[in-house]
Amino acid sequence: MSEQKLRIAFIGTGVMGGPMAGHLVKTGHVVTVYNRTRAKADAWAEQYGGKAAATPGEAAKDADVVLSCVGNDDDLAQVTLGRDGAFKAMKAGALFVDHTTVSARIARQLSVEAEGLGLLSLDAPVSGGESGAQAGTLSIMCGGSAAAFAAAEPVMRAYAGRIVHIGGPGAGQTTKMVNQIAIAGVIQGVSEALRFAQVSGLDTDKVFEAVSGGAAASWQMVNRWGTMAKGEFDFGFAVDWMRKDLGLALEESRANGAVLPVAALVDQFYADLQAMGHGRRDTSVLVERLPK
Amino acid sequence: MSEQKLRIAFIGTGVMGGPMAGHLVKTGHVVTVYNRTRAKADAWAEQYGGKAAATPGEAAKDADVVLSCVGNDDDLAQVTLGRDGAFKAMKAGALFVDHTTVSARIARQLSVEAEGLGLLSLDAPVSGGESGAQAGTLSIMCGGSAAAFAAAEPVMRAYAGRIVHIGGPGAGQTTKMVNQIAIAGVIQGVSEALRFAQVSGLDTDKVFEAVSGGAAASWQMVNRWGTMAKGEFDFGFAVDWMRKDLGLALEESRANGAVLPVAALVDQFYADLQAMGHGRRDTSVLVERLPK
Repeated sequence: MSEQKLRIAFIGTGVMGGPMAGHLVKTGHVVTVYNRTRAKADAWAEQYGGKAAATPGEAAKDADVVLSCVGNDDDLAQVTLGRDGAFKAMKAGALFVDHTTVSARIARQLSVEAEGLGLLSLDAPVSGGESGAQAGTLSIMCGGSAAAFAAAEPVMRAYAGRIVHIGGPGAGQTTKMVNQIAIAGVIQGVSEALRFAQVSGLDTDKVFEAVSGGAAASWQMVNRWGTMAKGEFDFGFAVDWMRKDLGLALEESRANGAVLPVAALVDQFYADLQAMGHGRRDTSVLVERLPK
Repeated sequence: MSEQKLRIAFIGTGVMGGPMAGHLVKTGHVVTVYNRTRAKADAWAEQYGGKAAATPGEAAKDADVVLSCVGNDDDLAQVTLGRDGAFKAMKAGALFVDHTTVSARIARQLSVEAEGLGLLSLDAPVSGGESGAQAGTLSIMCGGSAAAFAAAEPVMRAYAGRIVHIGGPGAGQTTKMVNQIAIAGVIQGVSEALRFAQVSGLDTDKVFEAVSGGAAASWQMVNRWGTMAKGEFDFGFAVDWMRKDLGLALEESRANGAVLPVAALVDQFYADLQAMGHGRRDTSVLVERLPK
């Protein structure tokens, strides 16, 4: 499928979806985008040489593949099942792939709806952030049928490094939650460690040299210790997005029975940080809650 | 100094000190050991071809370098300052290096005592565990004067990979605390993430493949996810040792003002695990507190 020129609709041309859809154009597909703010869709079309549609349905009509990367559950329901949504416009046998981080519940619901319409569907949240979307090196966690995964995988290669088929509908979303739960503990651990070093009067560069190669090592420590030590947070993955993701995990934990003491606590710390005006700053701003 | 054949005393031939002292013999030094349980010192001497002494003072007499790796603050005070302790027996200008993980307070106290006796001294806790001690690849975090570090570094090369001079007396110990604080957050994050994956019915191998290469990655995830998923904990770094180390960090936080919400919480979780009989199991047993 990757060598085939496909008709693709991409719904949501934000900081993630914009460059992802751009990679699809570069790969040789014919791409039509939809964005709630029409001007953004037009700007995307001009930048990448694709087309812009007035509604999700218009973009999805005649498309072989419809992809979405929007804001949340409500946005996703709107662009798929809402008035002028994509699902009713799609042709039988077409493929729907959602890259939004949403609840497992809506992912499963869309899978059922898609099946009823004779569509293939996949929940496929991504990690790797804005820089991963731009570089085309995202990691994608997929939930859905083997047939849907087989159809989607070569298309997603345009903007992904790692693509893993985890399981049935919703499994992509629950795996993304696993990822964010782990990150919450790691960033808080790194934050407490760094602040402890600072209030102890230690040279944080030397401490990093000593502790970053062993059992305390993490991506967060390697990539954020230096900026956290300098108090730099205006980049990366925003607190507001992390709160949304932790909210999804905590919601899902009421269904699956998982106990998440530290993820729940860190979610509250992030609520503090939002109230302190840090909502748009990188998640590593967690260290700023700790006295120095 | 590394090419010189030194007279070295090593106090404490446990699972860490035993192999560390053994590496010193292999490097060509003349090593005399002391252990509270005399039979262990004799067994060490037979295995490695060194000598065993009846008291720390006897081992330390005439030594160029005295190293220790014992259990805790009280043990360390006993073998250095106690009756038949090393300090009074050491010759002026000799070097004392402590590898025990202890409080920053006793590290600073020993530095003052050593200075008064005309000795060089270094606090030099290690990380890397039993396997690192055996392989001679420990990481060592050092606090003390530049002169003490310069004298100790070539000796410690016998059993270390990474050796970092962090700062003055106590800085090695506070850096070790930084390391353990970070680990506490990371292991709890990995534990919650893994259990969430399990109760969601996900294939944990596939989840690992999807999340272990990005922002959620950590040494603990890479090295413990698989064993945690299988419920294997009879190896590694024991809960009892971690509780001791977190206790030191929490004690120090009352002095330096650090706030450690997750380290304090995880310390309590480890107390649960001790009560459940898991004290000798690897720290990754933290996942067993979470329902599945």
